[in-house]
Amino acid sequence: MNLAKYKVTSQIKLSDFFTKEVEDDAKKALKKIRKKISDLQNAMYAEGKYGMLICLQGMDTSGKDSLIREVFKDVNASGVEVHSFKVPTALELKHDFMWRHYIALPPKGKMGIFNRTHYENVLVTRVHPNYIYAENIPEVNSLDDLDDAFYHDRMKRINDFENHLAKNGTIILKFYLNLSKDEQKNRLLRRLNLPEKNWKFSDGDLKERKLWDKYMFCYEEVLNKTSKENAPWFVIPADDKPTARLIFAKILLEELEKYNFVAPTLAPKLLAQIDDFKAQLHKE
Amino acid sequence: MNLAKYKVTSQIKLSDFFTKEVEDDAKKALKKIRKKISDLQNAMYAEGKYGMLICLQGMDTSGKDSLIREVFKDVNASGVEVHSFKVPTALELKHDFMWRHYIALPPKGKMGIFNRTHYENVLVTRVHPNYIYAENIPEVNSLDDLDDAFYHDRMKRINDFENHLAKNGTIILKFYLNLSKDEQKNRLLRRLNLPEKNWKFSDGDLKERKLWDKYMFCYEEVLNKTSKENAPWFVIPADDKPTARLIFAKILLEELEKYNFVAPTLAPKLLAQIDDFKAQLHKE
Repeated sequence: MNLAKYKVTSQIKLSDFFTKEVEDDAKKALKKIRKKISDLQNAMYAEGKYGMLICLQGMDTSGKDSLIREVFKDVNASGVEVHSFKVPTALELKHDFMWRHYIALPPKGKMGIFNRTHYENVLVTRVHPNYIYAENIPEVNSLDDLDDAFYHDRMKRINDFENHLAKNGTIILKFYLNLSKDEQKNRLLRRLNLPEKNWKFSDGDLKERKLWDKYMFCYEEVLNKTSKENAPWFVIPADDKPTARLIFAKILLEELEKYNFVAPTLAPKLLAQIDDFKAQLHKE
Repeated sequence: MNLAKYKVTSQIKLSDFFTKEVEDDAKKALKKIRKKISDLQNAMYAEGKYGMLICLQGMDTSGKDSLIREVFKDVNASGVEVHSFKVPTALELKHDFMWRHYIALPPKGKMGIFNRTHYENVLVTRVHPNYIYAENIPEVNSLDDLDDAFYHDRMKRINDFENHLAKNGTIILKFYLNLSKDEQKNRLLRRLNLPEKNWKFSDGDLKERKLWDKYMFCYEEVLNKTSKENAPWFVIPADDKPTARLIFAKILLEELEKYNFVAPTLAPKLLAQIDDFKAQLHKE
């Protein structure tokens, strides 16, 4: 599998990307990779120099929740933390839009997963600019103030933020789950038809679906303007869930393998006494 | 009093700045200003668009603690929060150097005071570059990696961070308490001589004092490279404490007065019913 094709390295159009790709035995293949990801997280923890920030974006029903559930099954619970960002709280709105994300950043050694991310500040709030009013920003007095320049400036600041993190040793990987509009229709219908699933449905889902093209425009801008060498975006075909998870996991593994994590060695002073320590224990 | 002269707007040399300035009746004058600062904080809170970040830097004994105690006496305790940053904890070291400061940022409506600030990451850690090792940064493997470019890049990132905050409505004011080396000697001797004060002394104080010139070089770089229109530095003569506090308070007041904080009005719908509400209460 050629993973390079999923990475956003030049100006892209989402319509050029596949939404569906099917890999045979994707579930079995994922199982093997999961274990390797777990080992590498352990190694990253032992070395203590790097942390990892995994950003997940995608339209409703694109499979973000289940991807997290399936891919990170074998990772030590101490080594991974998931933060799902919903509508901001009153306290969060009293801070800059990055604050709630900053607080939730993973420490060195851990994988932090943002299920929806700081990019919502240039996605959902660009599709619905009036949401920005809740942030009480001094220069924003009318919808005219929320022009392209406003969102492009936010993207620039998001890149500044990620650049700062990368220099500290945070490995940043960003994934867009590329779902087709048709497949969303199928998934929403399934959600409505299955009594045990329909709690996940909200009438807002259909309202957002009507804004599909506007969302695609905003995603395209985000992918084109904010994919950087130290914080790249990957576009994952998401119409087949097992395959999407496998591609995601393969990319994650490939990125982790680039770092040759080395566990620290015992200090020479202690190393010299290792036989003494053993003897002390045996004598007990 | 011409306050403009304290603001860093061009390339400066610290030796051109006074360390001592004495204002008669500084304490009385401060009292009047304190009340006004309190009123403006209230107005800022009611409007809910702006927050304020006050950064305080200065050598040991420059009077940061007592300045905070005296200047903010009349401000509502709910309206001000002070964060003193000491040696970073193990958890803080597992994050990027900005993380602990980000968490502590003031929400809209409040004044947040940083007693020592994120600038210590280009001050004390530049005078003692080996402190940086504790941060476990991947590219830092020897002292050679900690060259001027390393610290200049950090300053650039600090400016990015402040620029982001300013655009959210955070008013940022940064103050350097400019103490002379002679006056520090007096204050350290007083600290040692007074039994009720000598708990504040540490033998580290004398070690740092020996690095005075290196500190001045680092401060000069910070003041010259990071004073920006939306996050300016002010150099306050600090050899006379009451005067230093007064100058600080005057600048703070002048900056607050630039914003014409307007409390929100009652929604028209409620305003129309105001007589009904009164009547309901009277009827009880």
